[in-house]
Amino acid sequence: VNPRLFTFVAGESGPWKIQEIRAVFGEGLAAAPSLDVVNGVPMGVVFPSWQLSGVTSHERYVNRAEKEQLVAVQPALGRPEATCAVLIPIRKHPRWWALTPDERRRIFEEQSHHTAIGLNHLPAVARRLHHCRDLGEAAAFDFLTWFEFAPDQAAGFDRLLAELRATPEWEYVEREVEVRVVRRTAL
Amino acid sequence: VNPRLFTFVAGESGPWKIQEIRAVFGEGLAAAPSLDVVNGVPMGVVFPSWQLSGVTSHERYVNRAEKEQLVAVQPALGRPEATCAVLIPIRKHPRWWALTPDERRRIFEEQSHHTAIGLNHLPAVARRLHHCRDLGEAAAFDFLTWFEFAPDQAAGFDRLLAELRATPEWEYVEREVEVRVVRRTAL
Repeated sequence: VNPRLFTFVAGESGPWKIQEIRAVFGEGLAAAPSLDVVNGVPMGVVFPSWQLSGVTSHERYVNRAEKEQLVAVQPALGRPEATCAVLIPIRKHPRWWALTPDERRRIFEEQSHHTAIGLNHLPAVARRLHHCRDLGEAAAFDFLTWFEFAPDQAAGFDRLLAELRATPEWEYVEREVEVRVVRRTAL
Repeated sequence: VNPRLFTFVAGESGPWKIQEIRAVFGEGLAAAPSLDVVNGVPMGVVFPSWQLSGVTSHERYVNRAEKEQLVAVQPALGRPEATCAVLIPIRKHPRWWALTPDERRRIFEEQSHHTAIGLNHLPAVARRLHHCRDLGEAAAFDFLTWFEFAPDQAAGFDRLLAELRATPEWEYVEREVEVRVVRRTAL
């Protein structure tokens, strides 16, 4: 198994209690009481409501200055105070993937300021991006992004989502779901 | 299964007769008499000598002008006269993946002229690139490139490989194998 592979499993058990699953664009995901996040592919989960896998990977759009800014301020996952988390699976339109990488970069950053907007919300929000598009199995989404933050940062996180969804990049999003969870037990 | 997934299976049977397996950088691959190229993951292959999977994907480095030039001149796989083929699995050094995409583009094209060199050998050589790095299973290589050409184009193909291997980009290649095959039967 690729050590960069992670799977989000929605089902009967897991450390994260699902509070809301909201279809933002396109089809949503089935309801479930709990979410688990596991490295690799879980064995022996009987009838999960759904499960989504993706791999962390090298950056696709940031330049060196942006990467250094991110590395300097982005927090790790698993902070004790970060008891709120959101999983956002996204699929982009085939038109996005037909663009060349420099065209995608122009929309992503020069027009939409994706990294710049994200940086404004650091170090409050921890984030891990997983890629699904080039897995061997057909995937319903292109990306899974996992965010963790403290409850008093929730309004800021909502602003981050609103800012990103108002950008030209989001015209290429054809499916997006928000899975909002809270941690059941202290770390 | 991802419809863009292909698997190269070396073993007892297959339409391509393996003539030579050469370790160019690092460890080679085991000898085998035949190679098969299948869409998806083959079922019921008993003890292949080795098998390697990868997915075709969107372009990582070309700009719009380069993409249009490629689309205009690149031939399809499966031409009847293209009875020679070469599979080249490559793994790049972690230093390559630690670069940002614009830094990789500069080495790939502005310094190494990867696409420009490839264009010089079109339409003689048909090519399909497969990505393995972001599969769910740990992969021994980052890319699998499959080339097809007519026997009288073999010298030109060797020149293409020599030109690419002399570029700055190739300083990041830590494993490369050449699997040379010829078609057993007419299409």
